[in-house]
Amino acid sequence: MKIIVITGASSGFGALTARALAKAGHTVYASMRDTTRQNAPKVEEVKKFAKENKVDLRTIELDVSSQESVDAAIQQIVSENGRLDVVIHNAGHMVFGPTEAFTPEQLAELYDINTLSTQRVNRAALPVLRKQGKGLVVWIGSTSTRGGTPPYLAPYFAAKAGMDALAVSYAAELARWNVETTIVVPGAFTSGTNHFAHAGSPEDNVRLKEYESGPTANLAKQIMKGLELTAAPDADASEVAKAIVNVVDMPFGTRPFRVHIDPAQDGAEIVNAVADRVRAELLRNMGLADLLKPSSSEVAVKKAS
Amino acid sequence: MKIIVITGASSGFGALTARALAKAGHTVYASMRDTTRQNAPKVEEVKKFAKENKVDLRTIELDVSSQESVDAAIQQIVSENGRLDVVIHNAGHMVFGPTEAFTPEQLAELYDINTLSTQRVNRAALPVLRKQGKGLVVWIGSTSTRGGTPPYLAPYFAAKAGMDALAVSYAAELARWNVETTIVVPGAFTSGTNHFAHAGSPEDNVRLKEYESGPTANLAKQIMKGLELTAAPDADASEVAKAIVNVVDMPFGTRPFRVHIDPAQDGAEIVNAVADRVRAELLRNMGLADLLKPSSSEVAVKKAS
Repeated sequence: MKIIVITGASSGFGALTARALAKAGHTVYASMRDTTRQNAPKVEEVKKFAKENKVDLRTIELDVSSQESVDAAIQQIVSENGRLDVVIHNAGHMVFGPTEAFTPEQLAELYDINTLSTQRVNRAALPVLRKQGKGLVVWIGSTSTRGGTPPYLAPYFAAKAGMDALAVSYAAELARWNVETTIVVPGAFTSGTNHFAHAGSPEDNVRLKEYESGPTANLAKQIMKGLELTAAPDADASEVAKAIVNVVDMPFGTRPFRVHIDPAQDGAEIVNAVADRVRAELLRNMGLADLLKPSSSEVAVKKAS
Repeated sequence: MKIIVITGASSGFGALTARALAKAGHTVYASMRDTTRQNAPKVEEVKKFAKENKVDLRTIELDVSSQESVDAAIQQIVSENGRLDVVIHNAGHMVFGPTEAFTPEQLAELYDINTLSTQRVNRAALPVLRKQGKGLVVWIGSTSTRGGTPPYLAPYFAAKAGMDALAVSYAAELARWNVETTIVVPGAFTSGTNHFAHAGSPEDNVRLKEYESGPTANLAKQIMKGLELTAAPDADASEVAKAIVNVVDMPFGTRPFRVHIDPAQDGAEIVNAVADRVRAELLRNMGLADLLKPSSSEVAVKKAS
């Protein structure tokens, strides 16, 4: 039975995963912002779900864009349970449109929501996990980071690529503190999440109109049509939640570095396999092979003996 | 003879590339910030080089962190030459230390210098290139984005991964405007640039000390030693400049999507080969194969006929 916090749990993967983990018997904090206003109905839904299913699923106010809010949430969880076992970085937001029509400020905002958010949560939670000498960090990445990608999603893809780089680095930096890392990599799910429906738009309308009237006049429509062509029609977002439950329930030290859930098979799984292989090779060549697994894991102990 | 602007040209790859391109006969604007104060000696060096070698190498004030400064520089270049042929995104900055000890604000700053900088330059320069119906954008990426990476460089790696994602998306979005893209991917050059010498440090000293006294006490030293072990001792930074000159001098429409200059062979070349292949496959499957090359290129014209 683990104490788990997950960000961005008001909808999509986050909401599904929080429920699935609670059903698996864990104490789960479904964190979201604006619990008393915008997300008040979501809080009620969670309460109802917990009661009906007799599971320990709770909501907690946590705005990933505010260090103060993040700190308060993590402190509350630790004071209520005396520990925190699993952190799941899930909060994210998408935009759609020609890259040139997004302002640098919009790109900065996307990086903040998708990437700096994880840094705020890590700076609040990792001291707890490191002090415990045990913990798990799960990152919800994106196949876009390594797989084939359509245009017009660049600010989001750039932020997710940054988040993946942070995850990869943190994995090695936390290994000797006996904190384990798994990166869960979902492909494009065009249904079952609000990701596409809630996608933001470029702020520079003059530039947007240039792209909409020049040689790229039809491109936005063609991309949406192409996404339909290449999407897996039976893609089920709950598969991502199931994969996360599976990772959390594995014995410490045996969890995979990455798990892909990509019904559309955009190639990320193949590319990441090679990328993670050359990463392991480099760490070994640098004399840092122990960073590939948490220090108390069987593999790490075997290597050290 | 092309009109070329390159960012971050006061030192490192930027300074070497600006000189090599001028020697190859092009009009090159070596852009940098603070041309009248901090970089005044660099401006003098450039003048001296141009005079001694009888080449058209000029400096121009351009602070990539300011849209106003970027706009003014691009406007000056266009008004002096009536056009702009090649934009080279090179400006960048590195940091070194445990990720957890960097503030979110430091991560945002790194993203600004390495990634948002390219967005500011693109928003100033691309309307010119698109209106011309011809142009080339060269991005100086990093093998870290796809190759094996050591820990303690995450804020920089995250920003470069974001920049690479922007480059990949822009390549497809600009193809129909007949603007070509090449991503030049240098490996780790521990000499010949100021990249490692000038690397920034984490601001959170309390957190830094925890990493320096816990199980990671020796990690920073081990990483530096490991980098020496795996670096190519004869790595020559001027090879990057040569590769860029080669790309610029190739006929329009025939330039490679990526060029790797990685004496240490960290695996990025192999991973990118697979990643770029699945990207092409996805665009073809989406009915967007024409986005793989600028519209007037021989390949594109052949496909359309």
